[in-house]
Parts: sequence; C-alpha cells; structure tokens
Amino acid sequence: MKVCRRETFNSAHRLFNPDWSDEKNFEVFGKCSNPNFHGHNYVLETWVEGDIDSETGYVIDLKYLKDIIRNEICERFDHRNLNLDCVEFHSLKPSAENIALVIWNILRTHLDNRYKLSVRLWETENNSVEYSGH
Amino acid sequence: MKVCRRETFNSAHRLFNPDWSDEKNFEVFGKCSNPNFHGHNYVLETWVEGDIDSETGYVIDLKYLKDIIRNEICERFDHRNLNLDCVEFHSLKPSAENIALVIWNILRTHLDNRYKLSVRLWETENNSVEYSGH
Amino acid sequence: MKVCRRETFNSAHRLFNPDWSDEKNFEVFGKCSNPNFHGHNYVLETWVEGDIDSETGYVIDLKYLKDIIRNEICERFDHRNLNLDCVEFHSLKPSAENIALVIWNILRTHLDNRYKLSVRLWETENNSVEYSGH
Amino acid sequence: MKVCRRETFNSAHRLFNPDWSDEKNFEVFGKCSNPNFHGHNYVLETWVEGDIDSETGYVIDLKYLKDIIRNEICERFDHRNLNLDCVEFHSLKPSAENIALVIWNILRTHLDNRYKLSVRLWETENNSVEYSGH
Amino acid sequence: MKVCRRETFNSAHRLFNPDWSDEKNFEVFGKCSNPNFHGHNYVLETWVEGDIDSETGYVIDLKYLKDIIRNEICERFDHRNLNLDCVEFHSLKPSAENIALVIWNILRTHLDNRYKLSVRLWETENNSVEYSGH
Amino acid sequence: MKVCRRETFNSAHRLFNPDWSDEKNFEVFGKCSNPNFHGHNYVLETWVEGDIDSETGYVIDLKYLKDIIRNEICERFDHRNLNLDCVEFHSLKPSAENIALVIWNILRTHLDNRYKLSVRLWETENNSVEYSGH
Repeated sequence: MKVCRRETFNSAHRLFNPDWSDEKNFEVFGKCSNPNFHGHNYVLETWVEGDIDSETGYVIDLKYLKDIIRNEICERFDHRNLNLDCVEFHSLKPSAENIALVIWNILRTHLDNRYKLSVRLWETENNSVEYSGH
Repeated sequence: MKVCRRETFNSAHRLFNPDWSDEKNFEVFGKCSNPNFHGHNYVLETWVEGDIDSETGYVIDLKYLKDIIRNEICERFDHRNLNLDCVEFHSLKPSAENIALVIWNILRTHLDNRYKLSVRLWETENNSVEYSGH
Repeated sequence: MKVCRRETFNSAHRLFNPDWSDEKNFEVFGKCSNPNFHGHNYVLETWVEGDIDSETGYVIDLKYLKDIIRNEICERFDHRNLNLDCVEFHSLKPSAENIALVIWNILRTHLDNRYKLSVRLWETENNSVEYSGH
Repeated sequence: MKVCRRETFNSAHRLFNPDWSDEKNFEVFGKCSNPNFHGHNYVLETWVEGDIDSETGYVIDLKYLKDIIRNEICERFDHRNLNLDCVEFHSLKPSAENIALVIWNILRTHLDNRYKLSVRLWETENNSVEYSGH
Repeated sequence: MKVCRRETFNSAHRLFNPDWSDEKNFEVFGKCSNPNFHGHNYVLETWVEGDIDSETGYVIDLKYLKDIIRNEICERFDHRNLNLDCVEFHSLKPSAENIALVIWNILRTHLDNRYKLSVRLWETENNSVEYSGH
Repeated sequence: MKVCRRETFNSAHRLFNPDWSDEKNFEVFGKCSNPNFHGHNYVLETWVEGDIDSETGYVIDLKYLKDIIRNEICERFDHRNLNLDCVEFHSLKPSAENIALVIWNILRTHLDNRYKLSVRLWETENNSVEYSGH
C-alpha cells in the first residue's frame, strides 16, 4: 500500500555549468541559463509504501508526513533562490532531476527504514521527474 | 499494456478507534475523528493490465469496466456514510488505505484472472493512496 | 482589479426539507437526502475587487485574505457536519447556493467597504455556484 | 531517475472492425463506431528513465525530447484523421491502446538504448492507457 | 446567484469556407481545414442565474439541468462529426464560437425565462469561448 | 462572444519597496521580499470580446492572438527576472496585480479597438488576479 502527499514550493533557479563559457551554457541550457535567474512553482508528490497499521488504518499519518515535507523541504526551498540561498546546490546544478534527488535524500533520513520512498516533482505542467532511490 | 478508468463518489466518514478514549482518538485522528462525520469527493482510478485483443484493439472494454466500477463501487459508496451505511466498514476504519483495499478486493472478484489490477484513490487533491494487491 | 484566493474545506451534509415526508425528500433531493449524510471536498474561490495600493502593489494582501478565509470559513466548516455542527444551517438547507450565501455574508463583515466581494464554490468538479451579493 | 514530457494532439478517429457487420460493430464499439468519426484531445506523457549526466544535471534534455515528440508524434497525428490520414492505422484499430503502442514504437527508435521508455496516453479525462514495452 | 454544471462531449469537425479555394482555406484555417477532419474533447460549462428557492435551497435542480444538457447537447454532438452528422452546422462553420452560440440557443428554449443563461466551451485546454446571449 | 487563449511563462521576482527598511519589507511582504528572488510558473488567460466574423466563424483568429501573446508577453517575461531584466518593473513592484496591468496595457496596443480585453493571471494555483481595464 502506497500513500502520497502533495505539497508545493516556489523558487528561483538558474542552470549553468561554471566550467563552460556563457556561449556553451546558452547552447546547452538555453534561456534556463539566464544569469538573473527565472523561477517555478514546484509541485512535489511524496510517495511512501508500507503496511497498514490495524489500529489507525494508516500506512503513515499523512499529517505527520506533511509536517516532515513542510519542515524539511518547503521551509528550505520555498521562496528561495536555489543557486544562491541553498547550500545543497552550491556544487550541484538545480535541475529538476537533482532537486528530486536532494529531496529524496533528505526525506529518506526522516522516514523509518520499513518504508519505501519515491518522489515525483513537477517543474512545469509539462515537465516532471520521478526518483525512487538507487 | 495498462488501461485506466477514472470515476468519482462522494461520501461521509469518520476516523476513530472504538478501543480508545475520545481524547486519544482526537490526538491520533485530529478533526478526522469529529463524531458527526465530515466528507470527501473521492476520485478513483482503476488500472487493469493485460494483452490487447486484436479483434477490438482493447485490453478490456472501458465501458464494461466503467459499468463494473459504477455498479459495484459507486452504487455502494456514493452519497453514503461509510461508517454507518456500509457493512464493509463496520469493523474496519474507513481510512483512504482501507477504502482502497476494500475497492481492490471487490473489483478483483469481478475481473478475469488474466488481468492485473491496481487502484489509486484520492481523498483530497493533496492526499491519495495506491494499492496493487498482496 | 480583482484578486482571488482559493481555499478548500471538507464537510458532511444532507439535503432535506423537514416540512416534507421522506418520500417527497427523496423525490426532490434524491440520494442527497440520505439520512446518514454524505460529504464533499468544497473548493472556494474568494474574489476581492479594488484599487492597487501603490506602496505594496496589492489590492489586498493575499496572506491577510487567506487568514480571514481560513479563520472565518475553513475553521467553521472544515471537517464538520454542516447540518449538525454548524448553527448557520440549523434552519437553512446546506445546498451549495446557501453555503455560498453564508460564506459571502461572513466574509463581507470582515472586509472594508471599499472592496467588492464575490465567491465561487465547487461542490464537485462538475457542480459549482457563484454569488456576488444582492 | 525518470523524466516526463507532456504534449497534446487533437485527432479524429473511429473504431470498427471491417470483418464485422455494422450491427456487430455498434454492439461492440457503440457510438465509437460512428461512420463519420468523432475526435479527442489526446494528452501524451512520455517517460524516459536513465542516469543523470553530471555535466548537465539532466537525464535527457527535455527540449530535445520535446522536439522528438513534436516532430515524430504530434506532426504525424495532430489535426489528422487517424483512420484515413495515418498509414499506421490502416490495418490497426486506433484504440487508445494501439495508439500508445504505435507511439512507443516510434519513440523507441529515436531514443538511445540506454534509456527505458514508457508512455501514458489520455483519450478523455476519464480514460487512459500506459505502455512500457514488451 | 449563479449555478454551473460541467459536461463533456467528443466530436470531430473541420473548419473550411466552401466559398474559398483549398489554398485560401488552408491559409486562414491552417490544419483545422484538414479535409478528413480532426476532433476534440469539448468541455461545456452551463451557467444559470436566478433566485434561490427557499423550499429546496436550489436556484435550479442541477440534476434537472444535467438532464437537459445531456439530452439536448451531448446526445446531439457527442461522438458525432459536427460537419456531417449535425444539421445545425450544415451552413454554419463549427468554430468554438458557433458551437457555443448553437448550444446557448438550444438551452435557452429549455429554460424558464426567469433564468439568465451563459455557456463556456473549451475546445482545448488552451482555447475556450464564452457566450451570454445578445 | 468572448474567446480565451491560455499561455504560460516562468519568471523570477521579488517584492520590496525601496523606500522601506528591510524589516518593514519583510513585515509587509514576508518571504516574497527575499533579496535573492524566488519564482513562479505564471498562467495567463487572455480574453477578447467581439462579434463573430461570418466568413471565418471566429471572433479573432486564436492563432493570431497566440502569436501576439507569445511575441509580446512570453518573449518578454519568460525565463526572466522581472525586477532585473524587465524595464517595465524597474519602478513598479512586480506583484501579480501590476504584472496583469502591464500585460493588459501591452496587449491593448496590439488589438483593434473594436475588441474588449480582459486578462486573468495565476501566480500560484491558489492566487490569481483579473484586470479588464479602467
């Protein structure tokens, strides 16, 4: 049985590779490399898989899961500049893939090992990624 | 090949454990334990996996699947109080997890064994569960 | 300039007219008259019209508007039985129309007179109402 | 790590089996067998699974994936009659299942073998299919 | 007080002007003039404005409104070719604007004069029209 | 008859008043005043009201309207920092209200006077504004 909680956060970011010229960055990342940043409303689905607790009928209390997501993810990334404000992306490009990876790693440390964890992240209504661990 | 049919039903429910005090119920279930019930618009996705029939191009006729879902699930739960009106939840807490489990078990008996079955159930736009059998 | 804030609440309710027989109630309200209630995820859009304040760029601070809606509407109706728990509906049928009317009247008292107010309420994804005052 | 791109196309189609009588076609396919066709706004999610490239932070450049989908799928099927205009469906019924199968086979030839590929196709908001290869 | 019912229908159509050459039709209507048609999932919102009936709490019974829309609009246009199957469009181009106009005129004859009527029609998720009468 | 085209753009921005201290800015704008910016996926509906042209069945060619919106609005604001990159907001706070006002004024100059114009802009799924001119 899997349960899913959906939360959102709004951030600025920029995609560029400091080892490359501005021309190569623009060639690869297009307008995503704009030096002054752009931004997104990120939508995050957090999926937790486990057994139903017969006393509560829950796999995990979704209010508890919501609190973890809000405290550990939204507080960290919402209304931030991922490149400048967030230490997680000082040496890692804040692509949707890497943001999902970082989120998965953070949430993993806050969930009991008996749970499987998967995250899906929408950067726009047309672009999304999903990560379930290695 | 998987096919999916989406249907909805609107029900009242309450989460509480009769073995616990009102205080403990409120502590665990919060306002979901309100004695006079609250309610949701449940959204149900039913996923059926199988081979394509070359005569029809269908895995399963979605009109046939729709009829099963409406007759066996929506007729049973729509505009009902899950706790009071539905025998399935007289001794089982109507959490989203348990509702999905009950729905899966009902639908399983109405589908040929050559099909795999999975259900996803949204309780709100932010909370959902998924069950694919044991 | 109009601004809009969207919030949700989840409630149980029942439609019936105490002056009518059960048969007439079922004839008019159908399964909405189920004695044990059913429920909905209500979606509420609150529209406020006014001039832009040049110091803030806001018509009204949407965080302030959100707080009013959550404190005055969601606190009152979320995870409640509208018929049993909410004095507003002791002598008023909790149809979507009347819920919107009640919400409009409550919000009106909390907003400065220089603002025009309108509310849209979805009972299901297919049924909604809108009220802009008399 | 999986990434997903969502695109749409609008097509006319008709479901019928040329080996059957009109009566049998109507019995099996209902109004989907209307001789003059009907149509849908198809929504296509293309899922690609692979490793993150450390230089770009991408599994695959979504602009590149978007171009493949638009050039190979949307150009072929958008504003077309699938039965009459599209050679892929001259001897294959354009059911959602078969459309997804055809799309998967086309996209597969345009993606490096190191990627896994999956497609999800909505024919209506209530009916969808998913195919991940054989 | 306004109430709204949402329904859908799926149709094929083609935009072309019989007084023009194929070249001019393609110049003006682009791929919408494809001779073999294309199609859409149309989404229709029907808005009815009136006073609340104190006995029911309704402006109009939405089940009654739903039946009118399904019988008079969906039955007529769903799984049809608007150009070939529907007499309403034999001499009128089935643009979204004209479809909305035709729907408004049909529904108007089925609603009491004390109601105001407005329709909104989505042809795609990005294109829609709205008509409230002349 | 009104027609509507929906487009999107993704931008970074920051709300702050240069006449105020950082403390007052944080007090009024909260985390929206973060010096390093944050961002949004803006969704823009452009509504144009006019008469149906009998030769085309259109109020306005939505492809033509789409091109105006993409060339004049999306090109200007998509993947930009509204505060730093866009001259329109050098002395105007980029609140949703002011962005809608600026968009309306730009689009107004590109549309024939016989059309009425209205824009709706979503900053998040819960916050939106609407402007129809003065």
